[in-house]
Amino acid sequence: MIKSLGYAAATAQSVLAPFNFQRRAPQPQDVVLEILYCGVCHSDVHVARSEWGASRYPCVPGHEVVGRVLQVGGAVSRFKAGDLAAVGCMVDSCRVCANCREGEEQFCEKGPVMTYGGPERHTGGITYGGYSNNIIVDEAYVLSVPVSLDPAAAAPLLCAGITTYSPLRQWKVGPGQRVGIVGLGGLGHMAVKFARAFGAHVVLFTTSPGKVEDGKRLGAHEVVVSGNRDEMKRYRNSFDFILDTVSAPHDINAYLGLLRRDGTLCQVGLPPEPLAVSAFSLTGLRRRLAGSFIGGIAETQEMLEFCAQHGIACDIELIAIQDINAAFERLVKGDVKYRFVIDMASLARDAG
Amino acid sequence: MIKSLGYAAATAQSVLAPFNFQRRAPQPQDVVLEILYCGVCHSDVHVARSEWGASRYPCVPGHEVVGRVLQVGGAVSRFKAGDLAAVGCMVDSCRVCANCREGEEQFCEKGPVMTYGGPERHTGGITYGGYSNNIIVDEAYVLSVPVSLDPAAAAPLLCAGITTYSPLRQWKVGPGQRVGIVGLGGLGHMAVKFARAFGAHVVLFTTSPGKVEDGKRLGAHEVVVSGNRDEMKRYRNSFDFILDTVSAPHDINAYLGLLRRDGTLCQVGLPPEPLAVSAFSLTGLRRRLAGSFIGGIAETQEMLEFCAQHGIACDIELIAIQDINAAFERLVKGDVKYRFVIDMASLARDAG
Repeated sequence: MIKSLGYAAATAQSVLAPFNFQRRAPQPQDVVLEILYCGVCHSDVHVARSEWGASRYPCVPGHEVVGRVLQVGGAVSRFKAGDLAAVGCMVDSCRVCANCREGEEQFCEKGPVMTYGGPERHTGGITYGGYSNNIIVDEAYVLSVPVSLDPAAAAPLLCAGITTYSPLRQWKVGPGQRVGIVGLGGLGHMAVKFARAFGAHVVLFTTSPGKVEDGKRLGAHEVVVSGNRDEMKRYRNSFDFILDTVSAPHDINAYLGLLRRDGTLCQVGLPPEPLAVSAFSLTGLRRRLAGSFIGGIAETQEMLEFCAQHGIACDIELIAIQDINAAFERLVKGDVKYRFVIDMASLARDAG
Repeated sequence: MIKSLGYAAATAQSVLAPFNFQRRAPQPQDVVLEILYCGVCHSDVHVARSEWGASRYPCVPGHEVVGRVLQVGGAVSRFKAGDLAAVGCMVDSCRVCANCREGEEQFCEKGPVMTYGGPERHTGGITYGGYSNNIIVDEAYVLSVPVSLDPAAAAPLLCAGITTYSPLRQWKVGPGQRVGIVGLGGLGHMAVKFARAFGAHVVLFTTSPGKVEDGKRLGAHEVVVSGNRDEMKRYRNSFDFILDTVSAPHDINAYLGLLRRDGTLCQVGLPPEPLAVSAFSLTGLRRRLAGSFIGGIAETQEMLEFCAQHGIACDIELIAIQDINAAFERLVKGDVKYRFVIDMASLARDAG
């Protein structure tokens, strides 16, 4: 076994606090990473607080991991000690179902093993995530990080990046298309960058008048304050594709109405309450409402290469791990531009 | 002007009763039809009773019209007196917008002119539908009825037929696919026939145990009683496409959960209340919820030819127009197998 130090929630009501634990003994196909940076995803808050079904404790969150390879098992071929590598939302899956074989491990029929809170098959325990000093992952679920990427700004690509890249690719967003992005948070700011890089005309919808200038700086051709009904009306029936990154309750029909015939609105935010979808919104112009969930391992690697080629990374605010509970509070209020990333060097202060 | 006799609702609270009125003087591009048969669509009830927004009165319903050509204007090229012809849900549209030019007149940007209750541009009045002895329509919106079709059983193809044919075509339903049809009414029974004719494996979902045998007779390979939770579970994650024809409130997530990865549920029923769609139902396997609305004129003609080639027609119950109010009551209760069609010869009894 390998000793680890991390930050964990002991119960749904607990704040995160230092936690000593052990990870499995490295297997021949395993890569051992020293974690350098870990992004702070809104999911981390939901799971730490048991807001998405019953969580397992202690909960060490974190699935936007960038680190340095410390050692590799004898069967590992793609990594060596010293490489920069990354781990996203999954650390394993069944590998034999149709979805796994087609490179869509996130839809594994047995359920992918999530990076934290999932079943640790080797130990019989639970998986612990990236709010820690190291992690051990089968090389098939480890990503290579191009050297031209800033490792701290690359960390959130592993969730916020792939979650927006994948649907924009799947729905073939490109030149000549009008694309709407709803919400300017961790996901939304990446969606704006990707949609712009793919060549689309990008319109950002935000509830915050204060984000208009930032939206344009990030790449949006136009920014619409969604509370302005007259302005919203001007965009009716005009979008080929809309990516909705909002997890708070919101009027989905207002956005469906912006789609042209056969247009698609893809939801990646996860509002806890059902969306109230008028059937008339869909039948009216034969519109489509879709969903998307992270992306497969191969597509995640493709996304990292795309970011390296196009100089794309996240806009981040670097924090010490001792500030994680304050960061959770600010995240819940939407007070971050646009992703917190933990500098894991700060963890040394807690080492005994 | 041409004298007409029909059945109309004088107000939202009125039953239908005989109504004498005038139609426009035929224009050079017009076809004058003697109506032989008219299907009774659930929309007729909704509009006669002003249940879908404010209706205009008097309201002569009916948009599933088959008739004999009485005369044609000098500019008409595709029809001559004596031909069997049909009129569906639309009698005109702008003809110049992108949707009209692409043969999707049902999505005309100016709004198509609906067969009843729409603006009659020539007279400045309102359009009157097929519950009458004649109708005058621009030949561009008149369909040719293949002689091998039974004209009474063909009438509901003009709405129930095209409304189910179009989405099954659009989503490329065919051999090797598992297709679910939700609801066995006027739309559902046609959807079962078409999906079977297109070569799919067809599973019908109905709330009525009494419809199981009929579902199989109509072409379903399997029939599932949707109230049976255990049976529903067996079908999870297994469908390529589901066509939902139900207009009553129902749990859409129960059906979304039956789709496999990247599968689509298309809604053609129009529940008045919003559908409560869980975002997790969509993101879980990247599923899609779509809508569809009748079909364009060219596709409607294609559908009629397909029906003639494959011996497909509606299962109907022929009624006299004097029975229309009783038929409306039975329709609301779902007591019809599977479409009422008015034998317009019965209208002679009301002629003064």
